[in-house]
Amino acid sequence: MRNFTFSNPTKIIFGKGTIAKLGPEAARAGKTALLVYGGGSIKKNGVYETLTAALTANGVNFVEHSGVKPNPVLSHTREGINKARENNCSLVVAAGGGSVIDEAKAIAAGVKYDGDVWDFFCGKAEIKEALPLFTALTLPATGSEMNAGCVITDETAKHKYSAHGAALFPRVSALDPQTTLTLPRAQVANGAVDSLAHIIEGYFTTTDSDALVTEEVVHALARSIIASTNRILKDPSDYNARASMMWSATLALNGLAACGYGGTSFINHAIEHSLSALYDIAHGAGLAIVMPAWFKHHLAADGPARLEKFGAAVFGVKTAAETIQSFEDFFKKAGAPVRLSEANIPTSDIPRIAANAMGLIRQWGMPQEQSEIEKILRMAA
Amino acid sequence: MRNFTFSNPTKIIFGKGTIAKLGPEAARAGKTALLVYGGGSIKKNGVYETLTAALTANGVNFVEHSGVKPNPVLSHTREGINKARENNCSLVVAAGGGSVIDEAKAIAAGVKYDGDVWDFFCGKAEIKEALPLFTALTLPATGSEMNAGCVITDETAKHKYSAHGAALFPRVSALDPQTTLTLPRAQVANGAVDSLAHIIEGYFTTTDSDALVTEEVVHALARSIIASTNRILKDPSDYNARASMMWSATLALNGLAACGYGGTSFINHAIEHSLSALYDIAHGAGLAIVMPAWFKHHLAADGPARLEKFGAAVFGVKTAAETIQSFEDFFKKAGAPVRLSEANIPTSDIPRIAANAMGLIRQWGMPQEQSEIEKILRMAA
Repeated sequence: MRNFTFSNPTKIIFGKGTIAKLGPEAARAGKTALLVYGGGSIKKNGVYETLTAALTANGVNFVEHSGVKPNPVLSHTREGINKARENNCSLVVAAGGGSVIDEAKAIAAGVKYDGDVWDFFCGKAEIKEALPLFTALTLPATGSEMNAGCVITDETAKHKYSAHGAALFPRVSALDPQTTLTLPRAQVANGAVDSLAHIIEGYFTTTDSDALVTEEVVHALARSIIASTNRILKDPSDYNARASMMWSATLALNGLAACGYGGTSFINHAIEHSLSALYDIAHGAGLAIVMPAWFKHHLAADGPARLEKFGAAVFGVKTAAETIQSFEDFFKKAGAPVRLSEANIPTSDIPRIAANAMGLIRQWGMPQEQSEIEKILRMAA
Repeated sequence: MRNFTFSNPTKIIFGKGTIAKLGPEAARAGKTALLVYGGGSIKKNGVYETLTAALTANGVNFVEHSGVKPNPVLSHTREGINKARENNCSLVVAAGGGSVIDEAKAIAAGVKYDGDVWDFFCGKAEIKEALPLFTALTLPATGSEMNAGCVITDETAKHKYSAHGAALFPRVSALDPQTTLTLPRAQVANGAVDSLAHIIEGYFTTTDSDALVTEEVVHALARSIIASTNRILKDPSDYNARASMMWSATLALNGLAACGYGGTSFINHAIEHSLSALYDIAHGAGLAIVMPAWFKHHLAADGPARLEKFGAAVFGVKTAAETIQSFEDFFKKAGAPVRLSEANIPTSDIPRIAANAMGLIRQWGMPQEQSEIEKILRMAA
């Protein structure tokens, strides 16, 4: 078990009717909020009404910044920073999924920085401060509601890069599983794949396979994600399954699932970020395509031990091949694509996808060459 | 899954050589620390030397408050408060196990309070503020290094009571598993029993048995505690087992293992606190005596469902009786007593023990009558 630091100051308010509690929490941070949201689903499921009423009732004014895209883009982030500055916003409130929260984080840090916000994403500047952030999560997937990272796409250069900094931890996140009861089935699938991917990256790239407690935690979260998703697919109105899925996705990327793993890397994410930067596909869908291929690559390069251990604990299977098949079966059952062709991505694009992925791979200091990425992508053809 | 709030601001620095990192962390909080420790084991295992050198190197003076007892007592806590005031201490540094950290917490809160510190424990006052606390943990068991509770014994009245408040969260805790390599075998056993007890109280008294993700987390921590302890019993120098045990014990009572369980209660702890208040036995030993008896009571009152579920997931057994037997076997193997007689406590004392336990049971708002507690204790005879 390797040395680690665990520090996560985000306060989580979880359960039915918790979104209104953001009102008094936000009021402690300031008088004017930038309210960040996406395409308007929060106006259909009641979140907008509940949240804005709670802000108003607690004396918090808000300026709206809507229209965040599923892969949030740099130009819209810059607009949000300008809007927050023009209106002297002293806090940011985000309502939506991981994309909305990620853009809200970038805005919160960008407002406090003299240069261009993209500097944080291309390694030119460090995030030292940010406006306090409050979130109402409506889509379990990215874990952004309880971590200090965010991902933004420079839509012109086609780069989907990440930024990190302790100042990005949301101060308070409200997670009401009721808001997820009406999620489209594709988003249920994408959320399940994404949260599984988060715990899998560490588990399969760790330099220390004897972190017993973290192995158990990873197995536990994987089992919970899979069992919850299966229940949701059967009965979308199953509140307890929605709740377990929501909390599992948060725990999957709040730091807990990598404690003691040492130098892990996010190879599946690096490749997927290239896919969604180039084709604007959902992050979860891209991951479902990349992961089975990467597992086959991992099996050839590193042997069957980790796949066997994971498969036995989570799927009740014996061999590495069965573990990979179990992942693929689960992704398919959830409705996610598992091959490039299913997302209409031609194999002739593989060199371009791999070249684009290299930007992030270099920025994250990972050892892979472009030829290795192309090889993995060919297994996803 | 019930509504819950999760908020845990403690920063954990985990691994080999991490105690010295408390120096710069403490320096950010002030210039003069009260250094709290126990009977001097930290002088044998190098913790005292490392910690005091790190404080000095970072410009933090310290006043020593040693001699904390395994069940920390009120008179010594009051002495610590006086010493901290006399020396204008602006922070508290604790080095040791849960008892040392608990007394350090009570001192940290007591210094900031005009009345008597026992007011916090008997429900007369709420903890609103405390000196910042930094801990170097040397014994995995209580979880105090990452939670907001503490337990103190009024040795005159024979009351072992608890106090809670967000101000009690340690600011930073350094967990170096190397410091646990020389623990006496009895403390290995007590730590294993205590940390298991922490996750078991919630699991078996929850009002919601469909918190899927938390069930999985509890099973994961239980498996990790048991597997780590078995490895430690076999090879006390097994660093990775020590590390997994240490982090498991922290996670067992940092809030994670009760998320969504709703109104849980600490019935085993309430009875055990009476045992250790009256006989000054180790907390873990007392719990190993109480738990098998309480399980039998639970089985008779609430049926086999929870015991069967836990047993299948953690011990690989089928029936509730086998689950109880598995607990008992594990406690015995670890070297903990499982009957009152093994701790030389006469059955004629049962009414007295139960009467004493009623103080805490009433304070914690639990429904049990004295006759029920006596019944449980008779099963531990």
